[in-house]
Amino acid sequence: MAVVVVDVMLKPEILDPQGQAIVRALPTLGFEEVTAVRQGKHFELEVGGDDPEGVARQVAETLLANPVIEDFTVTVSK
Amino acid sequence: MAVVVVDVMLKPEILDPQGQAIVRALPTLGFEEVTAVRQGKHFELEVGGDDPEGVARQVAETLLANPVIEDFTVTVSK
Amino acid sequence: MAVVVVDVMLKPEILDPQGQAIVRALPTLGFEEVTAVRQGKHFELEVGGDDPEGVARQVAETLLANPVIEDFTVTVSK
Amino acid sequence: MAVVVVDVMLKPEILDPQGQAIVRALPTLGFEEVTAVRQGKHFELEVGGDDPEGVARQVAETLLANPVIEDFTVTVSK
Repeated sequence: MAVVVVDVMLKPEILDPQGQAIVRALPTLGFEEVTAVRQGKHFELEVGGDDPEGVARQVAETLLANPVIEDFTVTVSK
Repeated sequence: MAVVVVDVMLKPEILDPQGQAIVRALPTLGFEEVTAVRQGKHFELEVGGDDPEGVARQVAETLLANPVIEDFTVTVSK
Repeated sequence: MAVVVVDVMLKPEILDPQGQAIVRALPTLGFEEVTAVRQGKHFELEVGGDDPEGVARQVAETLLANPVIEDFTVTVSK
Repeated sequence: MAVVVVDVMLKPEILDPQGQAIVRALPTLGFEEVTAVRQGKHFELEVGGDDPEGVARQVAETLLANPVIEDFTVTVSK
């Protein structure tokens, strides 16, 4: 059994309003050092079988991300 | 300038309906190997200054997570 | 066939960091008139059968909301 | 002071993986009557001034939705 992390982000060329809200709010809270923020989705999957990374990648393509507007990364964490 | 990743997840004892929906949908798509899914939020911050990790941790506590119901991790990625 | 809308919000006593980010960002964009923002999830369901509202309510309780931390409303829209 | 609701949905032609996960999970829970689900974001704004609906519409365009991939509706609720 492996724990596989899938992170899904809007493609860089697509505006991310939620990240924009955060980056604009931060100076009002005194956090001047943060110059950019993007927000995405983070999934933690428990996967069995012989190829947990491959399965997670297929799952990401099928049900976690929309490949037209989003990119994703797959990381076997343990 | 550092890129710092903040991942925010519901605390383990709090039910995550979105992860539940995914784990229940997967067998109908042939992904029998996935036994658990939890969904959270993933943030990528560009942070300057002397202590990007510390700043990101304060930002997470203040504006990215609700510490009553969520846990977060902070990772300096480069 | 009915279209049923389910809106899911964090309970009022639970801090909503995403709404907080937006409300803090708005004055920096010139929107001084907005005094509070809360963010939730919005679902549109197409439901058949004799009791679409009742079905949507059960779906909301089971898979769209976590009743410990969230409230929801169900509205038959057409 | 008015409460204005902004609902943001992916445009109909853009695949919504989260809605897909829910619609696929529902039959496994006995909810055969639900034939489609789409998930979006729901915002509740408290807005002052003379034109709360107009302000909320500008806020939605600027910070709540990405007009390239999302549609939104604005409703003055009280």
